[in-house]
Amino acid sequence: MKGPELLIQGARLWGGPRADLLVRGGRIAALGTGLDAGPDTERIDAAGCLALPGYVDAHAHVDKTLWGLPWQPHQAGPTLLDRIENERRVMKELRLSSELQSARLLRHMVARGTTHVRTHVDVGLDMGLAYLHGVQAMHAAHSEFIDLEIVAFPQTGVMIRPGTLDLLDQAVLAGAQVIGGIDPIGVDQDPKGQLNAIFAIAERRGCGIDIHLHDRGETGAMTIAMIAERTRTLGLKGRVAISHAFCLGGLEPERLEQMIELLLDNDIAIMSHGPVGGIPFPPVRLLAERGVRLFTGSDGVRDCWSPLNTGDMLERAYLIAYLNGLRDDPGLELALRMATYGGAQLMGAQDYGLEVGCAADLVLVPAECAAEAVALHPRPRWVLKRGRVVARDGRDLLPPLD
Amino acid sequence: MKGPELLIQGARLWGGPRADLLVRGGRIAALGTGLDAGPDTERIDAAGCLALPGYVDAHAHVDKTLWGLPWQPHQAGPTLLDRIENERRVMKELRLSSELQSARLLRHMVARGTTHVRTHVDVGLDMGLAYLHGVQAMHAAHSEFIDLEIVAFPQTGVMIRPGTLDLLDQAVLAGAQVIGGIDPIGVDQDPKGQLNAIFAIAERRGCGIDIHLHDRGETGAMTIAMIAERTRTLGLKGRVAISHAFCLGGLEPERLEQMIELLLDNDIAIMSHGPVGGIPFPPVRLLAERGVRLFTGSDGVRDCWSPLNTGDMLERAYLIAYLNGLRDDPGLELALRMATYGGAQLMGAQDYGLEVGCAADLVLVPAECAAEAVALHPRPRWVLKRGRVVARDGRDLLPPLD
Repeated sequence: MKGPELLIQGARLWGGPRADLLVRGGRIAALGTGLDAGPDTERIDAAGCLALPGYVDAHAHVDKTLWGLPWQPHQAGPTLLDRIENERRVMKELRLSSELQSARLLRHMVARGTTHVRTHVDVGLDMGLAYLHGVQAMHAAHSEFIDLEIVAFPQTGVMIRPGTLDLLDQAVLAGAQVIGGIDPIGVDQDPKGQLNAIFAIAERRGCGIDIHLHDRGETGAMTIAMIAERTRTLGLKGRVAISHAFCLGGLEPERLEQMIELLLDNDIAIMSHGPVGGIPFPPVRLLAERGVRLFTGSDGVRDCWSPLNTGDMLERAYLIAYLNGLRDDPGLELALRMATYGGAQLMGAQDYGLEVGCAADLVLVPAECAAEAVALHPRPRWVLKRGRVVARDGRDLLPPLD
Repeated sequence: MKGPELLIQGARLWGGPRADLLVRGGRIAALGTGLDAGPDTERIDAAGCLALPGYVDAHAHVDKTLWGLPWQPHQAGPTLLDRIENERRVMKELRLSSELQSARLLRHMVARGTTHVRTHVDVGLDMGLAYLHGVQAMHAAHSEFIDLEIVAFPQTGVMIRPGTLDLLDQAVLAGAQVIGGIDPIGVDQDPKGQLNAIFAIAERRGCGIDIHLHDRGETGAMTIAMIAERTRTLGLKGRVAISHAFCLGGLEPERLEQMIELLLDNDIAIMSHGPVGGIPFPPVRLLAERGVRLFTGSDGVRDCWSPLNTGDMLERAYLIAYLNGLRDDPGLELALRMATYGGAQLMGAQDYGLEVGCAADLVLVPAECAAEAVALHPRPRWVLKRGRVVARDGRDLLPPLD
C-alpha cells in the first residue's frame, strides 16, 4: 500500500542544502530545488524544517511495556536479578496482552518519528511464545506503519532455566529474525553453555545474534572475547550485536583496545542507549572513530525496568550526547547516526536514507541542522512511512485501537 | 498588574486530589471541588492536567546565551580553562546584547513553564558591569512575567584578575542580590584570598553567596570546608549556596559524611543540574535524605559552554532522575522538588506553592501525577504568572521583541 504523490517543499536535508523532495510510489522520486509536480500532488510546506530519515529504534522491548495503563510506580530493587523477579511478579499480576501493549507503544513511537524497530521479545518458561505471537499479531496489523524485527529474548536466563533453549529455537522457527542472549556469566553462570547453544541456533537457522551484556569489567570483557571467538569460528562476521556492553566503559585502555580489535575483526555492532543511573557505558566517540558499528534504542519504555525511557529516538540521541559529553557538531551527528543509519544498517534496511530511490521514511523536524535537532530534540512536525503521513505535530494518524 | 479572575477546572494537584483552582488578584483564591465563579470569570478546562507550581530555574546564565542566533557549532576544548578562553574570544567577536539575548531566552523559559530565575551574570574585566545592566534592563521590561534574582559572577576568576573584586562589589551595589565565586583553587589558586574577599562583600552588603565549584575530589572538599568555616564565622548560615559541587560525587563515604555535616551545620544549599559527560555529581537522593537543601537550574542554555541545555526545567528534573537513577516515585518527585520548591526557597519566594494565598504562578501539564510528569516531561499546556496566562501549548504569549 503506497501513499499519494507528495511534494515536500523547502526542507533542509541533513548535511545538504535546502531542497524539495518529490515522493511517489512510497519512495523519494526526486530531490532538488524548484521541483515541479502535477496539480493533484499534495504539498507540504517544510520551510524551517530539517528532513531526516525515519528514526530507528533498534533496541526496544515493546512486548512488555506498561504504556497506556494508569501510572505504575516503579517497585523493583536495584539489582538485575531484583528487576527480573519483580517483572515476573508484576506481569503475572497484570496479565497484559502483548498485542495490545505493543500496539499502544507503537503508536507513540510513530508519533515521535520512529519508522523501524528491532524489538527483543521475551521467550521463556513463564510466557512460552505468547509474547512473540502477540507482537507478531500486532505487526501483521501495522506492517504498513513500521518495519519490525524480532529478537527472541531469554530475559530470565537460558541455561539456568531448562526448557528455555528449546523455546528460543521454536521462536526462531516461528519467525523471530534474531536470537538473543543475556549475561552468560552474570545470569547463567555458564558462558560456554549459553553461548555455544545460542550460536548453534544461529548457525542452524541462519539468524542473527543480539546479546544483552550488562556484566561489567573483566566479566563483560571475557564474555565479549568468547562471543568474538564464536563469531569467527562459525563465520558469522557482521551478524552479531552486543547490547549495552557496559563493560566497555570501565576497562583499562589496553584491555579496551583488545576489545575494539575483536569487535572490528568480527564486525560486531554495539548498542548503547546511554544508561540510567551513572553506570559505565561504551565510549561511543572513540568506538566510532575506530570504525565500530554503533546503534541505539529506547530499551524498555515505561515498563517494570524503568519509567524513564520515552520512546523518542531524537531525545535518545540527545541523551547519548549528554552522557558522552558530545557537544560539537560531529559528536551530535554521531548520536543521531546511531538513532538512524546505525540501526538501519543493523536491520538490513536496504532502501533507507535520504537519496533518490530510498523509501520515503522521513521525519521533518523544526531545526536548522542535525546538530541543532539533537540539542533541541523537538517533536516531529511530520512523519512519513513509505510516503504516507503517519504522524503530525507529535500525534499519530493511525487508525484508533478499538 | 494582575490578571483576570480565572477558574481552572478539574486539574489534579501535585500530591493531592483533583480540584478546581480559583485565581483572583494574581493569587490562588480558593481550592476545592465544584468551585463556583461569576459568569465573567474565564475558565480553563484542565481535565487530564496536573497543576504544578511554576518551575524555578535557580542556576542560569541568561546574559550570554546564543539563543535566537543561527546555529553556532561548539568550539571549545575540553577543560574549564579552555572553555573560559573560548567564551572570551567568541563573545568579543559576536558583540551580543545581553539585554536582547536574555530577553530571547526568557521567552523560551516562560514557554516551558519557568516563573522564577536565579541567573549568574558575568562581571569582570572584559565586560565590566555591562551584562549586569543588560539583564537588569531586560528584567525591568519583563518583571511581570518572571521573578529574577542576579548573582554577580566572576566567570574568569577573582584574584587572578585584579580589579574584578571591585567590580563585584559595584555589581552588588548596583543591584545584584547575590555575590558569586568560582573554583577558588582551580581557577584562582588562592582559596583563602577569593573566599575571604567574597565573604567580606557579603558581610558588608548583606547579600547571599552562590559559588561555582567544579573542582573535584579533595580539592573540592577542602573548598567546601573553607566555605563552611567562613559561613559559620560570619553568621551567614542559610545564606550560602554551592553550585555544581562535583566533588560530592567522588568522595570516600567517610569524607562525604564530613561534608554533609558541614552543609547541614551551616545550612548550605547545593545546586546540581546533572552534568554533561559522565563526570561525578552530588548524590542527590542521599543528600536529600540527610536534609541538605537542593536546587537545580539549566546552567548555560545554548552558549559557549554547551549546546546541550534546553531551558526546560521539567526536562531538567528528568535528567537529574536519569543521571541519579531515580526510578521510583519518591525519587522522581525529589527531582521535581529541586526544580520547584528547592529553588523557590533559595530565592526566598515567600508566596510560592499550591495553597490558597500563594501567587498564581502555575504550570498545567498533561500528566497523571508528578512522577509521570517527570518521566514524560511534556510541554506545559498552560503557564500562569501571577494569575495571567503567559504561555500556551509550549509557546509564550509575551509581547514580541522589537
